[in-house]
Amino acid sequence: MPSPVRRHPLAAQVADVLLERLRAGEWPLGHRLPGETTLAAQLGVGRSTLREAVRELSGKGVLDSRQGSGVYVTALDVPEDREAVLRRASIVSVIEARIAIEAEGAGLAAVRRTPADLRAIRRALRERRTEGQAVDAHVDADMAFHRTVVAAAHNDVLTDLFDGFVPRVRTAMIDMLGLRPLASEEADHALHEALVQAVADRDPRAAAESSRSHLTSLKEAFA
Amino acid sequence: MPSPVRRHPLAAQVADVLLERLRAGEWPLGHRLPGETTLAAQLGVGRSTLREAVRELSGKGVLDSRQGSGVYVTALDVPEDREAVLRRASIVSVIEARIAIEAEGAGLAAVRRTPADLRAIRRALRERRTEGQAVDAHVDADMAFHRTVVAAAHNDVLTDLFDGFVPRVRTAMIDMLGLRPLASEEADHALHEALVQAVADRDPRAAAESSRSHLTSLKEAFA
Repeated sequence: MPSPVRRHPLAAQVADVLLERLRAGEWPLGHRLPGETTLAAQLGVGRSTLREAVRELSGKGVLDSRQGSGVYVTALDVPEDREAVLRRASIVSVIEARIAIEAEGAGLAAVRRTPADLRAIRRALRERRTEGQAVDAHVDADMAFHRTVVAAAHNDVLTDLFDGFVPRVRTAMIDMLGLRPLASEEADHALHEALVQAVADRDPRAAAESSRSHLTSLKEAFA
Repeated sequence: MPSPVRRHPLAAQVADVLLERLRAGEWPLGHRLPGETTLAAQLGVGRSTLREAVRELSGKGVLDSRQGSGVYVTALDVPEDREAVLRRASIVSVIEARIAIEAEGAGLAAVRRTPADLRAIRRALRERRTEGQAVDAHVDADMAFHRTVVAAAHNDVLTDLFDGFVPRVRTAMIDMLGLRPLASEEADHALHEALVQAVADRDPRAAAESSRSHLTSLKEAFA
């Protein structure tokens, strides 16, 4: 939990105004803000208040004060809470991001997977196929399978991004499959088996393609 | 800022123990935990304390209590603070995740870009080429260019993921270019121009390939 920081009330307001102007595109990424005297006069505040506001935005990664050179724009917005972005995003956007992460992850997994990774992937594939699962249990087994493939890429950033998608995708898939069950469980299983085979064969191109084509059908089911 | 929640001290400890066991792989994703009576006895706590611990982990998306059915594992860990993951990750892992996001984003941008997107992309390409830029100004102009391409994919999740990478990549690139300037600025510019041409031509395959091959060289420069 972040420690509660007491914000200087006027500086905080000035920081909000600057952020609004950044979001509106007034100063592009990489550009220098007007000089301190000019900007303080524009905003109708003192230079020390402006400096405090700049410090606040620097701490958030939006501005960067460079000694003897000025204040530069390093981001156009405060990074948002990832869960909030995912909640608001359309399920199609989330699946497009899953395609990005999982196709790349599958290709890397084909190169880097260890014997233990492959055992975990195959075990998850078997569990995914358990007969007579309830929809939610099936979706969990499916997500667990996909996670074993991403994990075999041995890239913490990709695994963390995948984990971030899980809650949103899980709920959406349970809802969709409840309304519209898969046309063929056999065909669905065969697609997953092809992905595992490509990872086992150390074929990154086939693994990425297989992941992409399966998730693209999923995206189309939502569209 | 999350409101400070007062944790029940024993339940919080029990939640930590359950989380440790989940991380250690004792219960796979999608599996049901042992029954309340069994688990409470195993842990040597009362059922109400266990229930409180389960509630805490449910709130974090790790467990799911299903009416009349039991408690299921929905994640193997509490989602981590994204900045912490990125700080700890190797720069190669971060660039692999950038490849995932940007190659997918470039392909979608080729399909969805509007005339205004293309104008913003071309303006950013020109600024990226400004002669005599300092290293940090050049890196900022480069990141600004890449962001215009991702933004043209019109997918909030991809844009947000890109923004999350910027601070980590920016610092690493400034450090690297300071030590080892590009062999040829012309060749580097030509690669970026090819990406813009593919997006302008509405050629998703060429756009994705162009983004992937440029970022793969960047990854190799760090490896």
